[in-house]
Amino acid sequence: MAGTWQEQAQKKRESILAAIPQEWRIEAPPKESQVDVTGSFVHQFLNEREIEITETTANEIVKKTTIGLWKAEEVIRAFCHRAALAHQLTNCLHEIFFDAAIEDAKAQDEYFAKHKKPIGPLHGLPVSLKDQFHVKGVETTMGYVGWIGTFEGKKGTGKEKVFESEMVRELRNLGVILFCKTAVPHTLMSGETTNNIIGYTSNPKNRNLAAGGSSGGEGALIGLRGSPVGFGSDIGGSIRIPAAFNGLYGIRPSVGRLPYEGVANSMDGQNSILSVVGPLAPSVADLRLLTKAILSQNPWLHDPLVHEIPWRYSSEQEILALTGAIGDASQVGKLSIGILHTDGVVNPLPPIRRALSIVATKLQQLGHEVLPWTPTPTHSSLLATGLKSWAFDAGADVKSAFALSGETPVDQVSFLMHYKHHFSASEIAATNVEIRQLRKQYLEYWNDTVKQTSTGRPVDAVIAPVAPFPAARPGLYNYYGYSAFVNVLDYTAVAFPVTNVDKAVDKVEEGYKPISDSDKGTYESYDPDIYDGAHVSLQLIGRKLQEEKMLALAEYIGKLIGK
Amino acid sequence: MAGTWQEQAQKKRESILAAIPQEWRIEAPPKESQVDVTGSFVHQFLNEREIEITETTANEIVKKTTIGLWKAEEVIRAFCHRAALAHQLTNCLHEIFFDAAIEDAKAQDEYFAKHKKPIGPLHGLPVSLKDQFHVKGVETTMGYVGWIGTFEGKKGTGKEKVFESEMVRELRNLGVILFCKTAVPHTLMSGETTNNIIGYTSNPKNRNLAAGGSSGGEGALIGLRGSPVGFGSDIGGSIRIPAAFNGLYGIRPSVGRLPYEGVANSMDGQNSILSVVGPLAPSVADLRLLTKAILSQNPWLHDPLVHEIPWRYSSEQEILALTGAIGDASQVGKLSIGILHTDGVVNPLPPIRRALSIVATKLQQLGHEVLPWTPTPTHSSLLATGLKSWAFDAGADVKSAFALSGETPVDQVSFLMHYKHHFSASEIAATNVEIRQLRKQYLEYWNDTVKQTSTGRPVDAVIAPVAPFPAARPGLYNYYGYSAFVNVLDYTAVAFPVTNVDKAVDKVEEGYKPISDSDKGTYESYDPDIYDGAHVSLQLIGRKLQEEKMLALAEYIGKLIGK
Repeated sequence: MAGTWQEQAQKKRESILAAIPQEWRIEAPPKESQVDVTGSFVHQFLNEREIEITETTANEIVKKTTIGLWKAEEVIRAFCHRAALAHQLTNCLHEIFFDAAIEDAKAQDEYFAKHKKPIGPLHGLPVSLKDQFHVKGVETTMGYVGWIGTFEGKKGTGKEKVFESEMVRELRNLGVILFCKTAVPHTLMSGETTNNIIGYTSNPKNRNLAAGGSSGGEGALIGLRGSPVGFGSDIGGSIRIPAAFNGLYGIRPSVGRLPYEGVANSMDGQNSILSVVGPLAPSVADLRLLTKAILSQNPWLHDPLVHEIPWRYSSEQEILALTGAIGDASQVGKLSIGILHTDGVVNPLPPIRRALSIVATKLQQLGHEVLPWTPTPTHSSLLATGLKSWAFDAGADVKSAFALSGETPVDQVSFLMHYKHHFSASEIAATNVEIRQLRKQYLEYWNDTVKQTSTGRPVDAVIAPVAPFPAARPGLYNYYGYSAFVNVLDYTAVAFPVTNVDKAVDKVEEGYKPISDSDKGTYESYDPDIYDGAHVSLQLIGRKLQEEKMLALAEYIGKLIGK
Repeated sequence: MAGTWQEQAQKKRESILAAIPQEWRIEAPPKESQVDVTGSFVHQFLNEREIEITETTANEIVKKTTIGLWKAEEVIRAFCHRAALAHQLTNCLHEIFFDAAIEDAKAQDEYFAKHKKPIGPLHGLPVSLKDQFHVKGVETTMGYVGWIGTFEGKKGTGKEKVFESEMVRELRNLGVILFCKTAVPHTLMSGETTNNIIGYTSNPKNRNLAAGGSSGGEGALIGLRGSPVGFGSDIGGSIRIPAAFNGLYGIRPSVGRLPYEGVANSMDGQNSILSVVGPLAPSVADLRLLTKAILSQNPWLHDPLVHEIPWRYSSEQEILALTGAIGDASQVGKLSIGILHTDGVVNPLPPIRRALSIVATKLQQLGHEVLPWTPTPTHSSLLATGLKSWAFDAGADVKSAFALSGETPVDQVSFLMHYKHHFSASEIAATNVEIRQLRKQYLEYWNDTVKQTSTGRPVDAVIAPVAPFPAARPGLYNYYGYSAFVNVLDYTAVAFPVTNVDKAVDKVEEGYKPISDSDKGTYESYDPDIYDGAHVSLQLIGRKLQEEKMLALAEYIGKLIGK
């Protein structure tokens, strides 16, 4: 590849923009003049039919496309247009392949016309993918300049632009139309999305703020309804953070539920805390639709890490009966929910505290039970041990990826360059034992809550912040404890929206005494004027492999609070 | 602890023997004069009632004990007596706690008398445990002299003789009576069972041969019916090898099915190829009884490594319907079974080849389909990569355990002392990626067999040797490929008995040309006169987490061949 890394990055950046048809090009206003680019702002560039289509949920789309009421081509064209706008407004895309998508959609329409039936249950559904998934015809750079023109940094593998990830194969089987891949921070190890190719991905609801990361392109794109649903990955919060920052639902399933096979990654082979893939969407029903659809493809037959656990209706029905969604009134029961008000390291900012209070109050008003969540082991000990796994190789993997081009890492991931100690096998084994012991203690803490509840069960779930702030301000994401403890435990968690920052209500707490350096940084980063209007979200946490239950509960709670 | 390591070992050895009541002491005949100590030989030391009880399967025992027909005390006394004989004849026990067991049984009988109901579904069932499980009142030495008087090599932990493993807690809940812990090779890394405390554990059916390992004490004990069922562990064959060598069934479940929590281990924290626990018994029904019973205790609530997968009746019923055990004749179908005749590194000896032929012929006679199993990747590449995990720490863990006492490792595990290279985090990660890729290739090989079968399905299972020989001769176990490839793949496998060596039939193959050094060693170790009468077993292999299906299939095949 010719030129400096800056030139290579610029060329790639321009080629992405060049994939947007001229008629969809706009002049993006400066952030200062237009902080919120969602809703009426973006509507001005779309016709009514495009707005109708792109503001339809995935569940509603497939209801129409699978019976031929909506054509796949019309649907994908609308989303391509809106995705093009989203990219120009927030820098959320790495790969644009609208032409291929439109061809795929036409082929689906022909198939439907001929056979009078859909390709699959997701016929004609546009799905966006984080730029870790390999899709034929386009690159996977994962934000690394050195990966341009390669397969995961290697040249001449024969896989370049041909190989597809296992989940991509499954999505195509199901009838999905792929049309773009979304931005990530290079290395994937940040709650903000920025790299030398695409620059910084902003939050469409409030462009003063981060879209989140590492699945930040997904967050911004779906937040702006440039895609109805997309897939990210999560090793420390990377699905839940962008979901939360953009007012979306996002599930971090437990390890072994959904297929990671053939997906590019950082530090591949680190086996202590594993990254997982999962969907983000504006509604829980859409997360369920995609999760169930993937499971219907028996991913365990093609991914050795996936467990043979089909969708469990019985688990889902337990919650549905308990919350009165199905069954008779005699089955309706009380939920018992733990609330993590603080992890003792960084206290959540006022809007997050208000969100916790909104949810707790609503639950209690409906007769449910809310308990303070004060676990042993402490979250600080969980993080101190579990997050060693990010440092096992002393950054060797990411350093080698940067070395391919000589590019300078963005500040947000520079911490990875400062690791000095390369762990030995004995040290890794000792860490694994510690993680297991901490997980065991946490399990028993959870079990023991049966002594505090009035339901005869331990708490059904825990509600916690995803981050101490509604969304990070650029360069100021300084604490991952609220999202990452879930990964250390390998628990199932669903991010869900609660409210929006209201500068008149969510004021700075005067005279606040920070409890740690990170807490001080978080406190000082908060400015109600800057944050006004931003999404405020939380997460619902269940134990390992509780995807069906957590989705059912998240949907119930979402309805309670009007989301 | 005073004295040399030899003195400490002797003292422990004597204390084990001293736990056997005087009236149960016998003078064991030399091996030469009595090769087979099962059946009529051991019967001479038992009364009719003891023989009746100890030759009753676990399923039949609990049918009687749970309705009060048999008293727990009488049952446990009979097994204690026979276990005492087994130990004196084969060196199979590390810990004997008959007194505590009889007290537990009396308490159960009192409970039953008072409440007119059993403690649990396994009320009064004696269960033996490999000496990795912690049981209150006794030590866990795992064969290390340096662990005598400690908790896993550490003193003053407060856990010594008090702490119990999670599965022990569950077994007690179910009503099981624990009465002894069984011999292992120190380090657990051998297919023979020998250590400096207890010496060499012989095969009761043919004392010229090994009982197998590392759960060799279980194999010998249950083989001699000194226990109806017991639990071992398996990281390279350690359940299936002793099951096979002793004519028993033994299941190696996939990782995450049964609880390992709080069980002592070697190289704890090695996270690439994990050891698993599983039962050994004379019948498949007994393996099922124990597996289902453990799962009924929701082990995932107390072991963070266990997946929430209750017993799946539907998986079991698929096989039962297919084999005509349930449902109507229209559901009965053809099975398609792969047969691994050789792995290309070591060819199985004549009795093993005959066993493969017996099973294949029987299946074909009943209209089932048998296909040669010639997988890619090759088993030698699976082993070369997967078994690096045993060497990650260059033997650091086992060396430190030996260093506690200064004892000399037995020859069978001395290979662990010669590892020089301590793996780095990057090397471990690269190994993990290779293992995953090999598993993926193997999965796809399996999937592709759908093109060869006439059933419309890929093969339902694979039948393979557990070892190239019926049982190893002492000191001559030189190849683990047939058992260990299953661990590298994390597949579910059930060892099952097929026949016995017949020196008149299973002759040495004259003029045989060995295909490798290990093959030469195996070929040269075979002597029909020495092997005559030994058990000849195989294993049935299914993909990951197929415990229900593999047990159902093993039971079907066992019935076909009259076992």
